[in-house]
Amino acid sequence: MGRGVGVTNRFHPRDSVEFGRVLSFSDGLFAIAMTLLVVEVGVPKLVHEGDIRELARDLSDLIPNFVGFFLSFAVIGRYWIAHHQMFSLLRGVDLGMIMRNLVYLAFVAFLPFPTALLGDYFSNPLAISVYAVVAAIVSGLEVVLLRHAYRADLLRVRIRPEVLRWGTMASLSPVVLFALSIPVAYWNTGAAVAVWFLSIPVGIYLNRIRPPGAEILEG
Amino acid sequence: MGRGVGVTNRFHPRDSVEFGRVLSFSDGLFAIAMTLLVVEVGVPKLVHEGDIRELARDLSDLIPNFVGFFLSFAVIGRYWIAHHQMFSLLRGVDLGMIMRNLVYLAFVAFLPFPTALLGDYFSNPLAISVYAVVAAIVSGLEVVLLRHAYRADLLRVRIRPEVLRWGTMASLSPVVLFALSIPVAYWNTGAAVAVWFLSIPVGIYLNRIRPPGAEILEG
Amino acid sequence: MGRGVGVTNRFHPRDSVEFGRVLSFSDGLFAIAMTLLVVEVGVPKLVHEGDIRELARDLSDLIPNFVGFFLSFAVIGRYWIAHHQMFSLLRGVDLGMIMRNLVYLAFVAFLPFPTALLGDYFSNPLAISVYAVVAAIVSGLEVVLLRHAYRADLLRVRIRPEVLRWGTMASLSPVVLFALSIPVAYWNTGAAVAVWFLSIPVGIYLNRIRPPGAEILEG
Amino acid sequence: MGRGVGVTNRFHPRDSVEFGRVLSFSDGLFAIAMTLLVVEVGVPKLVHEGDIRELARDLSDLIPNFVGFFLSFAVIGRYWIAHHQMFSLLRGVDLGMIMRNLVYLAFVAFLPFPTALLGDYFSNPLAISVYAVVAAIVSGLEVVLLRHAYRADLLRVRIRPEVLRWGTMASLSPVVLFALSIPVAYWNTGAAVAVWFLSIPVGIYLNRIRPPGAEILEG
Repeated sequence: MGRGVGVTNRFHPRDSVEFGRVLSFSDGLFAIAMTLLVVEVGVPKLVHEGDIRELARDLSDLIPNFVGFFLSFAVIGRYWIAHHQMFSLLRGVDLGMIMRNLVYLAFVAFLPFPTALLGDYFSNPLAISVYAVVAAIVSGLEVVLLRHAYRADLLRVRIRPEVLRWGTMASLSPVVLFALSIPVAYWNTGAAVAVWFLSIPVGIYLNRIRPPGAEILEG
Repeated sequence: MGRGVGVTNRFHPRDSVEFGRVLSFSDGLFAIAMTLLVVEVGVPKLVHEGDIRELARDLSDLIPNFVGFFLSFAVIGRYWIAHHQMFSLLRGVDLGMIMRNLVYLAFVAFLPFPTALLGDYFSNPLAISVYAVVAAIVSGLEVVLLRHAYRADLLRVRIRPEVLRWGTMASLSPVVLFALSIPVAYWNTGAAVAVWFLSIPVGIYLNRIRPPGAEILEG
Repeated sequence: MGRGVGVTNRFHPRDSVEFGRVLSFSDGLFAIAMTLLVVEVGVPKLVHEGDIRELARDLSDLIPNFVGFFLSFAVIGRYWIAHHQMFSLLRGVDLGMIMRNLVYLAFVAFLPFPTALLGDYFSNPLAISVYAVVAAIVSGLEVVLLRHAYRADLLRVRIRPEVLRWGTMASLSPVVLFALSIPVAYWNTGAAVAVWFLSIPVGIYLNRIRPPGAEILEG
Repeated sequence: MGRGVGVTNRFHPRDSVEFGRVLSFSDGLFAIAMTLLVVEVGVPKLVHEGDIRELARDLSDLIPNFVGFFLSFAVIGRYWIAHHQMFSLLRGVDLGMIMRNLVYLAFVAFLPFPTALLGDYFSNPLAISVYAVVAAIVSGLEVVLLRHAYRADLLRVRIRPEVLRWGTMASLSPVVLFALSIPVAYWNTGAAVAVWFLSIPVGIYLNRIRPPGAEILEG
């Protein structure tokens, strides 16, 4: 709770030290969130240190945790690419963008918790749901960042309204898929995760129907 | 304890590699402190892995930890914004600034401990007090940094004494609120946390009475 | 699962903010993976806090963990140097390079797990094998990065095909050694680790037979 | 175990992307090592969540851990300042500097372990000794870095041999003090820590006797 409630909306251009700090802070946070995922995978405690079978059994029990690690690394990596892409369009940031970015990063930083939950309780529909909710929030906040950049005139390029609509739709499609996966999880948790992967064909379809000028909104 | 006690006061201008290092080191430390908060939230140990009710009960027990995570993310995020803002005013750093910044960052790096304490023992007045003391110290050190920058002539802009006084007051107001919240915590811990949020209306009020030229001291 | 499946292959030149982000993100991840290694070394729990002999005994039990820490620090440090060297050859990155780099970093970020396994169960051939497999994958992905840079015309310098072949062979030699060490581990785990160190004489030999122009592919 | 054993000694000038990566990697590692220190301070487990006395007792048991955290933050912070200072003198780095820097950073990254040991077993002479040994190695490696920079002609400024000798002595004085503290620890652990703080008057004395031109070797 520092100084500066009710602040003036100062602008930091792309080539300023301050713009760079927003990015290096974001990159650091992404890197840590992605690396912490492995800390949640605890090393098994063996009764006989040299027993190959015991270790093999314990490691195979950890397979959901390994899947969870690489799945979440891919999910957060995809977010990082989207963040990298969106900020490449900006001519600078204002305080509104900095604050929205912090809210967005809060949920990115929180992701190691649902990832660990997913790894430990892959068969539990509630674990899947918690993960889907957090991931949907991150995807939804991408839209908030993009629309703020548009409204506050932070973009380096001119975007027509239909391009913005298309970009919003493209960012919201994972939100819809994550939401859809929640009821599916109560029937079958594996099927729920499969729903998440529908984002790949959906992305290809959205790319087909994109309006002219929307190329720049892609990764 | 490296070389260099009793050092000469070298100056590193804003466009130097050395100024950049102070910021990238600070940003890295902030990012880690904010991301580590989630590690302190342990994943529940279920008796029946697939039991939705058991997991729901265990997750609802963790609600204070989640609140603690997002509250502390907001608090440290606010500190980061203040740090970002203050360093945007500097034309460079000297060794005095680097050392004061390290002391400031020591308390930022310590915050995950009181945050975890708060998450686990939200109803314990002492946990609230420890958090308030550490957060008050960080806010207080903001004043130390600002006043050193002023005295050592590190600011890029000229600030009149009444503007500095106002800025000091604005940084000290959270210190007062954190201090006030401590006796309140022994009556009701929720009320103590509510006192922390008074920094929002106080900030708005301080903004109303700010002298001309003080806009630059805001986030 | 952000926006942008089926993306256009945008190019970010070496002097852009976006090229810098790829590096600072990678450097952050390397730094964290290398520092997290020490967290996996738990502090011993003593019965008598001041007992020197008990602590000495407990610390000597941790020697494999210390060896694991410094060994893995050296391994990941070597990867960092190779990454530093390879990216120094690039005139920029495209999305293909960014994505391959993320896959590469996923395995770097995973390394603290096999390192902890190695530290706890140095005498277990399976622990050695898991480490060797993960390390071999990272070395193999170096080749993927280098060949993509070559094919996508991202290199700052012209490289003749025989130089690329030599570079590929130099990167694949640790893969072969890690693979060879796995059967050796089932006979003697110490000997398996010794096989890893053969990469030093092999590297010297490869350096002798390198074709003209291959100097730039070295660290 | 990447490519490139027997490498040519490429030079990366101060304004290159590659020089910047060495610094941002180092800064990230320092920031993480300093922030991880707090993770080692575990949150107490209370029997009665709201019991103020129980929490007060448990927190007072953690006082050595808090002292250990801030002491180590100060120690590593001092190392960071020395690193910041030394690299400000360089006109670039070669592979020899990069490798020596990695060895130096390995011991910086290891410091959280002896710090945790110190926090848990402050009264144990062996815990003090382990800390002193690791800290002495880091201080000693500063000398290795400085002398390599001198020999490999990486310095931006000309340094006379007596200035280098003085700088070596200034860096080695903490090594001597850490070494001296080890036998003292077996008599009294508090006294051993007091010996570490002798580096302050020793630094002041060394500053008095410094030869002309040695100012640049100070923090």
